[in-house]
Order: sequence, then structure tokens, then C-alpha cells
Amino acid sequence: MKKALYPGSFDPITNGHVDILERAAKLFDVVEVAILKNPSKDPLFTVEERIEMIKEIFKGKRNIIVSSFSGLLVDYAKKSGSNVIIRGLRAISDFEYEFQMALMNFKLSPEIEIIFMMPRVEYSFLSSKLVKEIYSLGGRLPDLVPPPVDRALVNKFHDF
Amino acid sequence: MKKALYPGSFDPITNGHVDILERAAKLFDVVEVAILKNPSKDPLFTVEERIEMIKEIFKGKRNIIVSSFSGLLVDYAKKSGSNVIIRGLRAISDFEYEFQMALMNFKLSPEIEIIFMMPRVEYSFLSSKLVKEIYSLGGRLPDLVPPPVDRALVNKFHDF
Amino acid sequence: MKKALYPGSFDPITNGHVDILERAAKLFDVVEVAILKNPSKDPLFTVEERIEMIKEIFKGKRNIIVSSFSGLLVDYAKKSGSNVIIRGLRAISDFEYEFQMALMNFKLSPEIEIIFMMPRVEYSFLSSKLVKEIYSLGGRLPDLVPPPVDRALVNKFHDF
Amino acid sequence: MKKALYPGSFDPITNGHVDILERAAKLFDVVEVAILKNPSKDPLFTVEERIEMIKEIFKGKRNIIVSSFSGLLVDYAKKSGSNVIIRGLRAISDFEYEFQMALMNFKLSPEIEIIFMMPRVEYSFLSSKLVKEIYSLGGRLPDLVPPPVDRALVNKFHDF
Amino acid sequence: MKKALYPGSFDPITNGHVDILERAAKLFDVVEVAILKNPSKDPLFTVEERIEMIKEIFKGKRNIIVSSFSGLLVDYAKKSGSNVIIRGLRAISDFEYEFQMALMNFKLSPEIEIIFMMPRVEYSFLSSKLVKEIYSLGGRLPDLVPPPVDRALVNKFHDF
Amino acid sequence: MKKALYPGSFDPITNGHVDILERAAKLFDVVEVAILKNPSKDPLFTVEERIEMIKEIFKGKRNIIVSSFSGLLVDYAKKSGSNVIIRGLRAISDFEYEFQMALMNFKLSPEIEIIFMMPRVEYSFLSSKLVKEIYSLGGRLPDLVPPPVDRALVNKFHDF
Repeated sequence: MKKALYPGSFDPITNGHVDILERAAKLFDVVEVAILKNPSKDPLFTVEERIEMIKEIFKGKRNIIVSSFSGLLVDYAKKSGSNVIIRGLRAISDFEYEFQMALMNFKLSPEIEIIFMMPRVEYSFLSSKLVKEIYSLGGRLPDLVPPPVDRALVNKFHDF
Repeated sequence: MKKALYPGSFDPITNGHVDILERAAKLFDVVEVAILKNPSKDPLFTVEERIEMIKEIFKGKRNIIVSSFSGLLVDYAKKSGSNVIIRGLRAISDFEYEFQMALMNFKLSPEIEIIFMMPRVEYSFLSSKLVKEIYSLGGRLPDLVPPPVDRALVNKFHDF
Repeated sequence: MKKALYPGSFDPITNGHVDILERAAKLFDVVEVAILKNPSKDPLFTVEERIEMIKEIFKGKRNIIVSSFSGLLVDYAKKSGSNVIIRGLRAISDFEYEFQMALMNFKLSPEIEIIFMMPRVEYSFLSSKLVKEIYSLGGRLPDLVPPPVDRALVNKFHDF
Repeated sequence: MKKALYPGSFDPITNGHVDILERAAKLFDVVEVAILKNPSKDPLFTVEERIEMIKEIFKGKRNIIVSSFSGLLVDYAKKSGSNVIIRGLRAISDFEYEFQMALMNFKLSPEIEIIFMMPRVEYSFLSSKLVKEIYSLGGRLPDLVPPPVDRALVNKFHDF
Repeated sequence: MKKALYPGSFDPITNGHVDILERAAKLFDVVEVAILKNPSKDPLFTVEERIEMIKEIFKGKRNIIVSSFSGLLVDYAKKSGSNVIIRGLRAISDFEYEFQMALMNFKLSPEIEIIFMMPRVEYSFLSSKLVKEIYSLGGRLPDLVPPPVDRALVNKFHDF
Repeated sequence: MKKALYPGSFDPITNGHVDILERAAKLFDVVEVAILKNPSKDPLFTVEERIEMIKEIFKGKRNIIVSSFSGLLVDYAKKSGSNVIIRGLRAISDFEYEFQMALMNFKLSPEIEIIFMMPRVEYSFLSSKLVKEIYSLGGRLPDLVPPPVDRALVNKFHDF
């Protein structure tokens, strides 16, 4: 059995993440979405809210599970029994950072493999940060985020 | 009549911005400099100070006007009756961010066109941030900012 | 009246080019597609074939015209009475070359303005070269090229 | 059973390719090295020579096999029963081209997944072209190519 | 006599910096490591701690000296009698920023030359920021930082 | 005594190269311009013509000398008694290739140092290839190439 870990902030999850996850779930037996608990960042949604949204989006998909972690990614990958870490790679802006992190993770733990997957081209410009910015200014992006995320963002920003 | 919108922070305006504006003013009937009021950023100059400096620089140029806005750029573009949004593109460092924003704006409002213009090569390394940094450390850049901006920066930083 | 020149090889024209052209035609009074006659390149389609395909695609659009030229782009821009040169800019792979050419053209002829426009995200990975490669290997891309181009490519490559 | 396809020219195979292959072989049940027969390129080694070298390098590794193909990559991927295409991604110089090809392949055949893997950092600057250039100028790179490739390159270039 | 200045934050110094310094010390008569005192950044180590670590690392190397400075880099370069400023350039992520700063420094002071040197490939993904992040999460990187830095980081982060 | 080698094709030398050379000549005791004899490329000017032009441009500058070489750059660097190889780095388009070559040269010969220098911003878009293209189409660039190169290009291209 091959288990893949898909780590990130997912604050909030977008259709770009969902696309990567659904594709990874065809290649590996289990894919675990692992939310990084980052005390130095001020998130929009709590880790619990993010877990709830992701569970709702993938309910019925039995090989996609969700968790949270703190500490080094490679340590959690080993602890969770993962064979491979999956990282999304957008056409623009991710490449160098991802490369740097991958090399560092490989340095720390060469036995964990890292693979990169690309979302569809229509999500290649999408980021959680951009999504939050648009909703905070009164816009909506129902094509680019799953319905539970759209609802949660409207609740956060459009009520006042 | 074709109206172009040139949005940004302009904190402060540099000769790179002035160059783009003067060139855009030859292609379109009116060009509106639109200063984004961004509550989450701590600007060096108030929106009013920035408007005053830009008015002084372009006094006599009747088809360059200045305003400020908040909210989504595409909403303001429509409200202001603009046909096109102009973005400057420097040789270095802007490309990916501009691309991402352009795609998002197109997503939100496909009827507003976005075009990119390049400043002259001698301004290709120039940014408002870099200008503020140099003046704050005691330097001056009279070739790279208009006289009212040079004076205002000297007043801000060199008096003490 | 503002006239824009859209130069290129167009060997063959793709939906990415068509998208740029239709958007430019909303901003300027006339847009002229100018095919570069490049003796050192071995094209797939003759200049005449390329002109015919482009005429067929834009028949009925009165402000899009097509021509061919040799020599320096800026010289032809002046000779054809153009105010501005339009260049498409894809998310990937064009930026540096376009920048270099734009700076050189500006050096040669500062009175001709150059603006950049982006095709829709779904064409951001598209190039004439890639299209030819796919058809030459037996594939087809009817979503990515106009019908006359699809037919011409099938005729070139799939008959034998 | 998951089968992965690792396509390329491999003219010749380098330690960067070998590293990717050995790592992929831990993630998938079978990995097939598929040499593209490209009539328009003038290779240094024949397809047969390349197959022989790869077989020698991986003899004893039962889940790494080697083949050759012509035509569209996605067609061969389907024909060979592959679930996923693997592409190596070096720190420098591959990214944009790989992205463009991946998007085009996805367009042609969305059911074939593409994943990217990175070689170790010490191979991040390595390419078959560079290897050939160094040997053709009288240099040797025994740390960067497998022994059969080193021998074959010395035979090609150093005898005269 | 040629004196080179190697400015930076060095919070903390890594093996990538050490590699650049040792190579620069072969090309120039004296190399001065100049720590920027940046009041707006919140460093992990004080300037004094950083000076101590660097002195310990290079004790015995008589042509590598260490200092700190505030204000414009080019002003300090002149004051310290330096002929050239050295900047490290990693395979990934530094290039555009370095270019922008170099052009600005050249603008401010054309008589000071700037040269770029690359660290070995195994340090090409290394940054002080990444090092601090790994140690703060409980990891260690004894191959990538000098022993005094490893000890200092363990003291800072692993005691609690 | 420190000797620097500045290798390249120089077909023809441009003001960007001249700028790098004059700056390098302030940092090192001797700078040798080394023209690569590349049998697989079809140059515009013979090696002898290129040597003559460079000699004419730098006559009177006693620490700039010119030569030609074939084979591996690092071998010639050692043979010519050079301590360091200088490479120009333009704002656009050179970075990745230069990096790859530098890493390979370091692999082949770690005792030869490579440093990078940037030309002035006004030459950052300049290349020998672009210069030849412009002259071949009937243009001239007297600000961007030295007078002997301008004359030689006019002779080559404008006579017919």
C-alpha cells in the first residue's frame, strides 16, 4: 500500500487543491491532507474549521483523509507512515520556493520521496491568499472554491 | 472616447510611473491615475499627499487625472467608465504577480481589458519601496523621482 | 484614429492569437495583423496561405486587416501609420524575449509605443510550434486553433 | 498495479536520469523508460545503443524496463498501459518547457496523469547536451554518468 | 591592494556564506564581512553574537575580517576603503533582487564595483531563514552551518 | 598578480562586453579576452576579424589583451595562467545558462574561480545576436557597439 501526504495551510482550500487531491487519489492508495499548525501565522480559519470544510468536501471519498500537524514535515511524514509527499506546482510563482523546500526536506530525510503535480491550467493563477483578498474586498469566486468554502468566506467577510 | 485606468499605491510616484503615464496619455483619450486606499498597509504618504504630488507633476496635462479608490479594482474600473486598465511591467520582478492579478481580474470581469506597458530601461529596476529605503538611509535619487517627490522625501527623512 | 500593429509569424495562427486580436480590436480603431516574411526560417505555410487563413477567420470584422512585411518591425510600423505595436504575452516562456525585443525596438524608434496583452489562461501554454508538433505526430487540437487552421493542418500532415 | 512511464531522449542517460528512475521505482510497481524516436533530431547514439546502455545499467532491477516509441507521448502512454508519466525537473532550465508540455498532454489526454520528480541537488545542473559537449571537447565526467555511458562517450570522442 | 566587502545580515552565517568568503579570500587581498544593522528587522542573534560567531569561524584566516554598519551600503563601502562589493548568488531565488540592488547601488555610486559569486551546488538551496525555520521546529543541519552556529541554534531553540 | 579570463564568442563585441571589460580591468591586473573557436557555429566574423576589432577598441589599454582558444574553457584558463573567469550577466536571459555552465566548470576544475559582473542597465537587453539581426535588416546601433564594429557591420550588410 502506498500512502501519500499532501501538506499545506489550506486557509482555505481552493479548487486548485481539490483538483490535485482528486488526481493524487487515483495514483496512491490513501492520500492524507495534512494541515500545518503554524503558530507564527495568523490564519483566517482555525485548524478545526479547515478540517471541517475539507471533510465536507471529500465526504464519500474513502481514500482521502485529513489531519493536522506541527513540527518538521518530514518527521510527520514518517510518523504518519507516508511513502511520498505531494506538492502542487502552479504555472506561476511556486517553483523556486517548492524547489528549495524539497531540497531541504530531502537533506533532512532522504527516504521520503517528494513529487510535484500540476493543477489544471484554469487554476494555475489561484492561491488561498488571492481568494481571501477578493472576498475581503466584496468579490466572490464560486468557480474557484468549493461551495463550503464560498459559504464560509461570505460569512466571514460579507456580513458587515 | 477611450479611457484608461492606471491603478497603484504610488507611495510615492516615481519617474518609472511618470514615464508609463506619459506614454499611455498618447494612446488613450484620458488616463486616470487611481490610488488604492489600502487600510492594511501603512503608507509613507497619505492618500491626500500622494494626490497633491501627482497633480503638481501633471499640471497642464489635461488628459491625465488623479483619483483614489477602495474595494475591487475591476469594480472601480467599471464605475469610473474605464475601457482598459494599464499596468507597468518592469524588466525584473513584476511579471508573475502582474500575471496572476490580471488573470484574476479577467475572471472577475472579462469585459475590462488589461494592457501592460514597459518603462524605459533606465527605470526597469526602480520601485517605490527601493526609493523609500534609499532616502530613509540618507541617500537621494533626484534622477529617479519627480522634483515634488524628491522634496517630500527629503522633508520626511532628512530633517532629523 | 488609433491604429495598432500585431506582428508575428502566425505559422499558423492559433486561438491565442485570435483572442488577442479580438480584444485589441475593441481598444483601437484598426488592428493590422502583420506577417513577418523571414527568409531564414522554413515555414510550414506560405505567407499567402497564412494571409488567406487569417482573412477567412476575420471576414466580417471590418477593423481587423492583414498584411505582410520584411525588414525592421519599427520601420514597417511607421510606414503603415501605426501608433502602437501589440505583442501577446503568455504566462510562460515569452517574457524575456519580448522584453528584449521591446527595449531594442524602443531604442530604434522611441515614438512607436509597444503594449502587451495576455491571452485567456486556457491559451497560456499554446504556441504555433507546439500546434505543428502535435498535428505532425497525428494529433488534433480543434479547441486551440480556428477551423480553417485545423483543416489546413490535417491536410498537411494527416493525408499520408 | 501502477505503471509509470519515463519518456525522453536519453542521448545519453545521465546520473540525473538514473536517480529519478531509482526513486520512481520505489513508488510504482513498474517504471518503463521510453526512448522517443525523433526523426528530426540527429542523435549521438542510435536508439538501439541507448536501449543497450540502459539495460546494462539497470540489469537486476526487475521493475525498470526500457522501450522506444514514436508519435504522441499520450498515445504511447495509453498503449503501454501506463497510469502516470514521470518527468524530471531540474532546479534550473526545465520548468517552463515541462509545464507547457504537461498542459498540452493533459489537453490531449486528461486521463493520463503527469508527475514531476527532482533529481538530487548535485545533478540539478546536468543535461545530456552538456555531457556530450564536455566529452566532445576532451573532458570526462565519470561522477555524472554511469560507467557504460562514460565508456561509450570516450569511444565516440576520444579515439581521434 | 584590493579590498572586497561582503555585506549581509548573516543571521546566522551558513556554510554557503563561508564557501563564498573562502573563495573571495583567494581573489582579493582582504575580505571584510560587513553585518548590516537593520533596526526594522527583528534578528535572532544580536550583531555582537553574529560578529563573535564569524570571528570564531575564521580565526587564523588573517585576510578575512568582520565589522558592522548602518546606512547606505555604498557609503560604507567607500568609508571602509573597499574596491568591490561581493554578493552571493544562489541557483534559486536571489537573482532578481540582487540585480535590482546592484543597479541601484551602481546608480548611487558608480565607482564601486559589484561582483557575484556562486556557492557550491550543495548550498544552492540554503538560506539563513530556512536554517532558522528548521532548527525552530526541532531539526538540525550540522552539514549546512559551521559548528559554532549549530551550537548557538541548538541553544536558542532546543533548550525548551 | 591576478589574471582574469573573459571568454566568449564576441561575434561581434558590443558595448555591453566593453563595459564589463573596462570594469574588470580595474579589479584585476590583467584581463584576457578569449575568443572561443567553435567549429560547429557559423560565425559572421572570422576569429581573426574579431581579434582585430577588439585590439583596435582597446589599443592603449595595456592590461586588456586578446586571444583565441578551443577545447574546454577550464583547460584554457589553467594553461593561460588565469586565476578567475569573468562572465557577464544581463538582467534578462543569461542567468540559467550561466549558472549551469559555472557549475559544470566548477565540477571539472574547482580551483578556477568564476565571478559574474553586470553591464550597465542600458546594455542589459543587448546581445551580439540581436545586433546582427538589426544590421542585417538595414538598421544601425551606433550607441550600442564600438565604432569599428559599427563600420564592420555596415560593410557586411549594407553594401548590397
